[in-house]
Amino acid sequence: MRIACVLGPKFEDSEFKQPYDSFKQAGHEIMVVGLEAGAQLEGDKGAVKATVEQSFKDARPEDFDALFIPGGGSPDKLRAHEEAVKFVKAFMTAGKPVLAICHGPQLLLTADEFKSHKMTAWKTIQGDLKKAGANVVDQEVVVDRNLVTSRQPSDIAAFIKESLKLLEQVPARR
Amino acid sequence: MRIACVLGPKFEDSEFKQPYDSFKQAGHEIMVVGLEAGAQLEGDKGAVKATVEQSFKDARPEDFDALFIPGGGSPDKLRAHEEAVKFVKAFMTAGKPVLAICHGPQLLLTADEFKSHKMTAWKTIQGDLKKAGANVVDQEVVVDRNLVTSRQPSDIAAFIKESLKLLEQVPARR
Repeated sequence: MRIACVLGPKFEDSEFKQPYDSFKQAGHEIMVVGLEAGAQLEGDKGAVKATVEQSFKDARPEDFDALFIPGGGSPDKLRAHEEAVKFVKAFMTAGKPVLAICHGPQLLLTADEFKSHKMTAWKTIQGDLKKAGANVVDQEVVVDRNLVTSRQPSDIAAFIKESLKLLEQVPARR
Repeated sequence: MRIACVLGPKFEDSEFKQPYDSFKQAGHEIMVVGLEAGAQLEGDKGAVKATVEQSFKDARPEDFDALFIPGGGSPDKLRAHEEAVKFVKAFMTAGKPVLAICHGPQLLLTADEFKSHKMTAWKTIQGDLKKAGANVVDQEVVVDRNLVTSRQPSDIAAFIKESLKLLEQVPARR
């Protein structure tokens, strides 16, 4: 599977790095998509760095089979940009796997893609989602059809396990 | 007037510092209230530092005449803690001046104090507020009775002006 990882400044280090490494080890390809190709990003703990490989302007959702949204400050930075919101929305519209952890579901909220699926998120975002009418539960991982969501770094193992399971079930589209 | 400024990690430097200085220069007292008394906080640009003077556990809303909520990463960190949300809610319930900029209204959203007043906020938070049913407008400053809100650092001058005007109109309660 070819996975797009949408990433902006101040992503949560482990929520990017651990799933990223696990998805690669399982044989999937991942491309870091962000606001500006070549931009150097740093995690909010300063422990992990990443380079944006493709900009939203150049990336085409149809070239990817799945979407991974790490948490931290990254999702709120990204959702201020229309091209990031449209990119995320395209995966939900197409029913492709979307794997979002912590603040990741902020992008689903802004993209108006939060009412069709049961989900979880970081606790403050759970509140925002509930107030907007989403079906939110507070558990380490929630799988609802194409959407896998988790709350926080301590959920990463469960998030990776369910994400890999989903990625194995869904056939690559290209 | 005695103002409580609620502050957490990664506040937006100028959104804290400029109103803080202006309120003091106008003769108001300000106390920085946060999660842990004595904690050293740094702005997300690294340009401004602040020390928490009183914890939410020890601070009593009835000892203050007004509330100031700077933006940046601070409001989302604070609203993960019930005592911060309760502290903020008390000012809205009492109808005391509440001055919130950028991500500041995230605390009003979590405190369920967003439906009674017209408001603005940082653009991504405008979206969250609208989806939750708030009356949101996109302008540099919005004054609705006891609530003053602004969007971003470029609105600071207007935010300070309207905040000071409100603080002068409302009599100190002690």
